[in-house]
Amino acid sequence: MSGEKEIKVGLLGLGTVGTGVAKLIEGHQEDLIKQTGNRITIQKILVQDKDKKREISIDKQLVTDDPWEVLKDSEIDVIIEVMGNIHPTYEYLMFALEKGKHVVTANKDLMALHGAELLAMASEHHCDLYYEASVAGGIPIIRALVEGFASDRITKVVGIVNGTTNYILSKMSEEGLPFDEVLVKAQELGYAEADPTSDVEGYDAARKMAILSNLAFHMDVNVHDVEVKGITKVTEEDIRFGKQLGYEIKLLGIAKQNDNLLEVSIQPTMVNKHHPLAKVSGVYNAIYVYGEAVGETMFYGPGAGQLPTATAVVSDLVTVIKQMNLGVNGRGVVAPYRPKQLKSDDLITSRYFIRLRVLDQIGVLAKITQHMAEHMISLQEILQLPDTEEQKAQLILITHETSKAQLNKFLALMEKLEIIDQISSVYPVEEGEIA
Amino acid sequence: MSGEKEIKVGLLGLGTVGTGVAKLIEGHQEDLIKQTGNRITIQKILVQDKDKKREISIDKQLVTDDPWEVLKDSEIDVIIEVMGNIHPTYEYLMFALEKGKHVVTANKDLMALHGAELLAMASEHHCDLYYEASVAGGIPIIRALVEGFASDRITKVVGIVNGTTNYILSKMSEEGLPFDEVLVKAQELGYAEADPTSDVEGYDAARKMAILSNLAFHMDVNVHDVEVKGITKVTEEDIRFGKQLGYEIKLLGIAKQNDNLLEVSIQPTMVNKHHPLAKVSGVYNAIYVYGEAVGETMFYGPGAGQLPTATAVVSDLVTVIKQMNLGVNGRGVVAPYRPKQLKSDDLITSRYFIRLRVLDQIGVLAKITQHMAEHMISLQEILQLPDTEEQKAQLILITHETSKAQLNKFLALMEKLEIIDQISSVYPVEEGEIA
Repeated sequence: MSGEKEIKVGLLGLGTVGTGVAKLIEGHQEDLIKQTGNRITIQKILVQDKDKKREISIDKQLVTDDPWEVLKDSEIDVIIEVMGNIHPTYEYLMFALEKGKHVVTANKDLMALHGAELLAMASEHHCDLYYEASVAGGIPIIRALVEGFASDRITKVVGIVNGTTNYILSKMSEEGLPFDEVLVKAQELGYAEADPTSDVEGYDAARKMAILSNLAFHMDVNVHDVEVKGITKVTEEDIRFGKQLGYEIKLLGIAKQNDNLLEVSIQPTMVNKHHPLAKVSGVYNAIYVYGEAVGETMFYGPGAGQLPTATAVVSDLVTVIKQMNLGVNGRGVVAPYRPKQLKSDDLITSRYFIRLRVLDQIGVLAKITQHMAEHMISLQEILQLPDTEEQKAQLILITHETSKAQLNKFLALMEKLEIIDQISSVYPVEEGEIA
Repeated sequence: MSGEKEIKVGLLGLGTVGTGVAKLIEGHQEDLIKQTGNRITIQKILVQDKDKKREISIDKQLVTDDPWEVLKDSEIDVIIEVMGNIHPTYEYLMFALEKGKHVVTANKDLMALHGAELLAMASEHHCDLYYEASVAGGIPIIRALVEGFASDRITKVVGIVNGTTNYILSKMSEEGLPFDEVLVKAQELGYAEADPTSDVEGYDAARKMAILSNLAFHMDVNVHDVEVKGITKVTEEDIRFGKQLGYEIKLLGIAKQNDNLLEVSIQPTMVNKHHPLAKVSGVYNAIYVYGEAVGETMFYGPGAGQLPTATAVVSDLVTVIKQMNLGVNGRGVVAPYRPKQLKSDDLITSRYFIRLRVLDQIGVLAKITQHMAEHMISLQEILQLPDTEEQKAQLILITHETSKAQLNKFLALMEKLEIIDQISSVYPVEEGEIA
């Protein structure tokens, strides 16, 4: 093969994913030529440390620690951004787009926060900006939402979109270990970062849910619209009691639209053990998409990892190059066209799992259930268990569908009751439509 | 909304899917305008019986029983083909493409048999030809293969791609009923057609596997390359004995590529009960895609049905219209670029489930296992069970990975042995990479 027009790529970042991208471009070159008609060449690579020892051999000439050497290189057609962070990455990409370079990014933080501005800049300069790798690693979920379901109205997106927390929760559940201990293990194995905040507090997953919601519901959803609760407070007891009632705790992203009103959250959730999401373990991701017409669909695959993520990046690159060949870059984006209206708490409904520590007295149960009835909360299941402390008992309530507003009123009241020693935990419950 | 350029569609067929398409175009019109910038109008509809009572109200003026009224209508931009069959559908679509009309089709029979000619004609006339709906109904699997995994090398595609047989096998397994009885039920419920041959003999699934293999492996695979075995010979005993060993029988499509050598088959398969495919029930489809870089991914959703299938059709229509607006129709298709080389039987390997009826004599087991060893087939598991006939026994062998060639030699020998009363059944075994 020779004589193909060369496409020159500038790579911002040569960490795990960047290295994967370089491997794929090199290793799958002949296939990529068949797909696009072009040979792809990495023209320059921005790194932090030019002398760092690398997993792959890279021509020293290509490597620079000066971003402008990449961004201002007029021969570069496409910038692949895998350096992460918001700043100065945002400024770099805005610059690149303004100069007419197409961008492929794996940066969910950036897309969740500044996606709209970046896409507007891309559109203005007839540039492509693709970001399949930013959500759910190797799963082509963005393409599914944007193209596959273009004709449908999505009503719900539910999924596991963070592999680190899923790994931690899986381990906690399988081995009965506390959060802190599993976190340390996960860090040793490289499944969790040295500073795990973004993962374990749910921020990473929240950004992904913002991106998915934006595309699924055509609303300008950003990360601030997502209710976020991480997994740091999930206890061994919650997991154990959940299991007794047939649930596994998963960090679940839920985005629902009814009558153009939206709710988006990421929170630890009691998932029916028969629901396939309960069985997604380790670093895998799984996303259910419900459409008015299509019904229930599910997408499953590796949520992270060098080569899976690189697959998404380089597939985006293939799309960009095909569109370069047709001269139609930057024309395909449908900007959010529905006004964003978030549901108030009285419209957000769920079943809930409530764990209370109560005084072990006659009439406690009657009192609590009476209060629930007064707040229009009906019970699906109740379980009383001995507590480790004497004269206390564990009480687990699983409610029928109720509004968050009702739930909060009920919980506020419970706080004040003397017979309640502690509200130990509250989780939404996801039974799944296939149980 | 007004003033948008109108896109005129000709609909060939107004059966289940055609009606769904009409419903979606009507019901989601405002969304479709937002997606494409165009109003979509159904200009003419080809039907068999103009006076037939319809589920939806259709302007009588639009309906015709003369195909040429649709095909020769110069105002029609896009033909949506949901009439099925090979002839005269093939001729109609070739005519339409030659006249510069884009085509969206749900016709797997046609695409599996004549996809190459149709795509060549489309390409020659700068027309689009999309067929997402032809495989796995509402699951956007074709987009995933063509775009999502464009940068990867697919090694394996495994899945349940026929809802009718899956429904029948699920029912047989759940209720312990024989094939014939369940088939009648399925026909009554509309899950199986009056002439069920195409589904139950595996032909429908074989066509879908041909289409998927073509796209996954970039080889000119057609339906004749697929080894096909239907479910008509699956017995209650097979299901029962399978269960005892931890398997469910599913009609599985398997396409595997190693070193550019391909095998494609559709056959009833013993699937490990912990494999998610074993749990896909009813009319749902699920397809695993394995790539060198991406690893394991899975796509799940409704494999048929009016609105799910219509979603795929109308999403293709959206793509066609977007490309019309950019003037780039018919340019995106990557024709198969790898020479098709099918594996010989000594390269096709699997584990196998073999059920034999043997004479209940001392030394039978030793003799059979000795023959297996001579044929280099090693056993993973063996189960001896009483037979309904006296002095006979049921013997179930589960082999380790072995070649089809070895297996066939062994089976030919078993046929001749006097101690073997009958080779009752042979199934490949799929354990799954997540068990």
